[in-house]
Amino acid sequence: MTANLGRLNHVGVATPSIAQSIETYRTLLGATAIGEPFDLPAQGVKVCFIDAPNTQIELIEPYDDSSPIAGFLRKNPAGGQHHVCFEVADIDAAVADLKAKGATVLGEPRIGAHGTPIVFVHPKDFGGMLVELMETPKGAH
Amino acid sequence: MTANLGRLNHVGVATPSIAQSIETYRTLLGATAIGEPFDLPAQGVKVCFIDAPNTQIELIEPYDDSSPIAGFLRKNPAGGQHHVCFEVADIDAAVADLKAKGATVLGEPRIGAHGTPIVFVHPKDFGGMLVELMETPKGAH
Repeated sequence: MTANLGRLNHVGVATPSIAQSIETYRTLLGATAIGEPFDLPAQGVKVCFIDAPNTQIELIEPYDDSSPIAGFLRKNPAGGQHHVCFEVADIDAAVADLKAKGATVLGEPRIGAHGTPIVFVHPKDFGGMLVELMETPKGAH
Repeated sequence: MTANLGRLNHVGVATPSIAQSIETYRTLLGATAIGEPFDLPAQGVKVCFIDAPNTQIELIEPYDDSSPIAGFLRKNPAGGQHHVCFEVADIDAAVADLKAKGATVLGEPRIGAHGTPIVFVHPKDFGGMLVELMETPKGAH
């Protein structure tokens, strides 16, 4: 990749209940900047962003039983860390570069929770960690 | 907790090989700000910090077979996301507050990889996610 390692846009955390997780972050960690949960039916998830001063936590709840995170929650019923998301300047360039280096990019870029193209890279390429790449929102930061 | 949710100081990532993980981050994500790995024998780990623009990735390799992350790697041989670390202004106040709210704080605060007191909170209190709290380094940020 020609670009340097980008901002950590968010840590994705799977949960069986966004409502319950919000209560936990509010009560135990003093979170106050908590977004409104919203549905991403095309991706099979409900999400909610909680702001830390320098990044976000993305709470992810299955939209239905066919959700891509339903399997994760079967293995980890309480929930847990699901992925990390780094920003890239140009998603197509990033995908081309990763493929050229032999990484397994999961599907084609699609519009993610922040309205810009995102793509996931197989955990086998990142030491067991699921990595999301997200094109930096224009005008952000 | 009286304070608001603090900075995400780092995401802790367990790996069987810091050297191999460094190569991955360098090659696939363009990481350039990579610290020198160092040993924390008292905590049973070797660590290495990789800077993203807004936070860090902490690579964690077992120091020996009795390492607290050896069990994690037995379950996840390739490695994976291990914990998230939020900063707090006062570790003793944070611990007292968490205990008062019924959370299970793991042991007493001890000096962590950044030279300030840290403590871990049981994943059962955070929806399956292991949370580290770290007192913000004086003069940081």
